[in-house]
Amino acid sequence: MKKKAVVIVSGGVDSSTLLYKAVKDDFETYALTFIYGQKHKREIESAIKICGGLVVSHKVIDLSVLKELLSGSALTDSRVEIPEVPETVAHYETLKTTIVPNRNSIFLSIAIGYAVSIKANHVFFGAHHSDRGVYPDCRGEFVKAFEHAERLANDNFNFVVAAPFVDLNKSQIVKLGAELGVPYGETWSCYKGGEIHCGICSSCRERKRAFEEAGVADTTEYER
Amino acid sequence: MKKKAVVIVSGGVDSSTLLYKAVKDDFETYALTFIYGQKHKREIESAIKICGGLVVSHKVIDLSVLKELLSGSALTDSRVEIPEVPETVAHYETLKTTIVPNRNSIFLSIAIGYAVSIKANHVFFGAHHSDRGVYPDCRGEFVKAFEHAERLANDNFNFVVAAPFVDLNKSQIVKLGAELGVPYGETWSCYKGGEIHCGICSSCRERKRAFEEAGVADTTEYER
Repeated sequence: MKKKAVVIVSGGVDSSTLLYKAVKDDFETYALTFIYGQKHKREIESAIKICGGLVVSHKVIDLSVLKELLSGSALTDSRVEIPEVPETVAHYETLKTTIVPNRNSIFLSIAIGYAVSIKANHVFFGAHHSDRGVYPDCRGEFVKAFEHAERLANDNFNFVVAAPFVDLNKSQIVKLGAELGVPYGETWSCYKGGEIHCGICSSCRERKRAFEEAGVADTTEYER
Repeated sequence: MKKKAVVIVSGGVDSSTLLYKAVKDDFETYALTFIYGQKHKREIESAIKICGGLVVSHKVIDLSVLKELLSGSALTDSRVEIPEVPETVAHYETLKTTIVPNRNSIFLSIAIGYAVSIKANHVFFGAHHSDRGVYPDCRGEFVKAFEHAERLANDNFNFVVAAPFVDLNKSQIVKLGAELGVPYGETWSCYKGGEIHCGICSSCRERKRAFEEAGVADTTEYER
């Protein structure tokens, strides 16, 4: 019998690569995508396209109702601007406006509830090494601690909660994804709600750089 | 400045008592109630009434969308019957059908995201000692481990996640609540969706016994 995995798929580069990896690693794969009031709803379409290209189950869960609780993030709050910063470490404080309070715990808890329901023993999400400065819920320490708590919550010490890319940077992920045949043209990174990638928000800048560093052709159309 | 707390309030005996305690302990209190597809929707009305009797903020969050992910529990799944068991330890296996997969992690994660948004450093929920046999996510070990993970997730080691009643049994809670003036007639325990308490589901049986043991008058109208 195949091992089952629930994979959280946003429609971006990292989680799309992770989904391809799970399928390649022969997991029976259940993808979950969350709508949480993000301005860049466009990424949901990407998630649907990416999942549609594989033999996986895919559910899109609308949690927009949480928007009223999780206020103040540039990603969801119309009063807070998406930062357009050059890609230097000095701008961590600015980038912190893109934190959605406790987002990964919320998504993981739900994914784990789903995994328990369908008797899947693995839950994967796409946090990677370049996230760790700004986003504490993307760090390996958090993932380990959360896995421990969730094993206790479900009386199941075989349960695995993992961010398999937690020690890779984005260009290493792109390299891996190119080998796995991830259709990156379908993925979405831009934090803004435009028709094409803006090219200057922190997420677009990171995307551009990852493809450059990986030496993988970037077919993304950028506005700037 | 008052300390702020987010309290998860279901409308039952334990969480209603906890809410009264938080207010008594002088927290600026933000109550959260979740709709998650429970058959006993009646408890939401109770939560609204209980919160309405105090000076607290109260938000009811509709997560019914999660019902399709968290299947198989007698509390949410129409194909699974609510157990009507005598209150003996031998029936833990039957009572396990009332587990909603990962419910407390999901509720706590959201409550914590909300707490981070409103700069509250305390999140309380009403798990108590009698829950620990059947529900692993009501045990002190889980709460401690979850608190640790959530502190890491939010870069905040002052953050408190607690189940203040984790070492009390239900009758001790009822005793405390009677002192605090909790209007227990407004609370709801029955797992079934009826007009009045059925009197024979595991939750009604536990309610009856708690009042008896506490020596507190039980004004609940039971069907049987």
